[in-house]
Amino acid sequence: MDNLRDLYPSRLERRIDAFKRLDPVIYRKPDADEGPLSPEQMAFYRDNGYLYFECFLSEAEVAQLFSELTALSEDSSLRHAEDAVLEPDSGELRSLFAMHRHSEIFDKVTRNPRILDMVYQILDSDVYIHQSRINYKPGFKGKGFNWHSDFETWHTEDGMPRMRCLSCSITLTENTEFNGPLMLIPGSHRYFVPCTGATPDDNYKTSLQAQQFGVPEEDDLRWLVAEGGIVAPKGPPGSMLLFECNTLHASNANMSPFPRSNVFFVYNSVENALQAPYATRNPRPEFLGSRRIETLTPGS
Amino acid sequence: MDNLRDLYPSRLERRIDAFKRLDPVIYRKPDADEGPLSPEQMAFYRDNGYLYFECFLSEAEVAQLFSELTALSEDSSLRHAEDAVLEPDSGELRSLFAMHRHSEIFDKVTRNPRILDMVYQILDSDVYIHQSRINYKPGFKGKGFNWHSDFETWHTEDGMPRMRCLSCSITLTENTEFNGPLMLIPGSHRYFVPCTGATPDDNYKTSLQAQQFGVPEEDDLRWLVAEGGIVAPKGPPGSMLLFECNTLHASNANMSPFPRSNVFFVYNSVENALQAPYATRNPRPEFLGSRRIETLTPGS
Repeated sequence: MDNLRDLYPSRLERRIDAFKRLDPVIYRKPDADEGPLSPEQMAFYRDNGYLYFECFLSEAEVAQLFSELTALSEDSSLRHAEDAVLEPDSGELRSLFAMHRHSEIFDKVTRNPRILDMVYQILDSDVYIHQSRINYKPGFKGKGFNWHSDFETWHTEDGMPRMRCLSCSITLTENTEFNGPLMLIPGSHRYFVPCTGATPDDNYKTSLQAQQFGVPEEDDLRWLVAEGGIVAPKGPPGSMLLFECNTLHASNANMSPFPRSNVFFVYNSVENALQAPYATRNPRPEFLGSRRIETLTPGS
Repeated sequence: MDNLRDLYPSRLERRIDAFKRLDPVIYRKPDADEGPLSPEQMAFYRDNGYLYFECFLSEAEVAQLFSELTALSEDSSLRHAEDAVLEPDSGELRSLFAMHRHSEIFDKVTRNPRILDMVYQILDSDVYIHQSRINYKPGFKGKGFNWHSDFETWHTEDGMPRMRCLSCSITLTENTEFNGPLMLIPGSHRYFVPCTGATPDDNYKTSLQAQQFGVPEEDDLRWLVAEGGIVAPKGPPGSMLLFECNTLHASNANMSPFPRSNVFFVYNSVENALQAPYATRNPRPEFLGSRRIETLTPGS
């Protein structure tokens, strides 16, 4: 396969300085002014790289998703699936990937028209699911995650050529400061921060438990936080966070007795199909970076 | 040495249920109504096991302490001292114990009459410093700490017989939700939660980096949090937290680029002198649990 040029070099042996992103943040639809996102929300997303919607889903919708999540976590056959990630210490389910293929109910969430209309407004194209997962983060046991850009990994290890992609995270439990909520560095999506260090084959087998490659250097994090600060949107179950594929984010350990569960899915533009990975030999498995472009159809 | 009876058994092979503490929280001075703590503050401390004072020290006082802290962290001779604890990954200074012996300026902090008058009001006796330390928790690198009661460790590993002791923590940098502030379970000091597991000799050599013994069972943490919740007082440098020796507390990793530095010192009643340790063979070193009862004299 003739790859598109590598516009975002990373995982090299030597350090490369951060640089401004080469892609728009908003691929503005011609009739974007008609919504659903207001001009203020569009400007906020453009400048900060995320949008937060408290109580986006109703209590009834959350209850249905939560019971589906519980059913999946109790399905012991799934625990041995390739796309299940277990907590290193306890063996409990940490994440289940490709949730939209495991569950019709979760498949429908990814095709929620209220979400898709926002995604179309921002990306101005049809989309497909690049990755999806349920995160359990059980009480006391959920470990944290270092600062990283998802795009940096999807580019280097999956071959995603450009930044025309965004993630959606919906909480299914209350998010508090004590159960390891997602933290973001507002504005960090406007830069590409190359990470240092050649990446071994099959890195994903260990990186899902503790990321070692694809972690920006501390000096870069320092000036990015000095510019944009850190935020951690918190709120009741059913709240939704849309964030740009290149926004730096992290999470801390869950120190509370309560789980921090959410569903996470990634909309990639159908015009941004995966190439060969830019920094590794083999692409990661289908459940981490899908190569089946199945254009989503709204449905509820 | 004929030990006082073990009223708080812990670190046994089998689980023991939590039970109500056998000691008062407040050893009320006869003239306690005269302050400095108000009746409301005394009641809050009795019920919750802590008191928080935002901006207790002036900016000038904080600046002086911060420059002393910086000087100590740059003194490379201290890095090899027995009472210095380094970050496992980076080798930076994580804690320096016996700070009141390393530094006249920090010695004076422990004898601050504004603090001592509160301590006298609560403990109704003279006091001495059981332990003191500076915590650095550098940006990005400061690891968290599991939930624990200090008294549980001081009892089992140092031989502190009763709960007549309290800790004082003064922040020297801003505390935010992102740099791993101290978290407390309000009301947890009213119970003793025995921890399971016989403790090896010289446990302190590893427990200062990651605690393995003296961690309550999750079921106990669960009902204690259900009763009292979790709090994490946050605020500007110079804020002070007084907390009862048996209040369960923890901290998360520092995910920010900024250090979370504080000074921490423990007032034990002179009538609560250390015995032989209740669960280990040898007492820990002097810098962790002092056996030199040097009654503090107020001085500024």
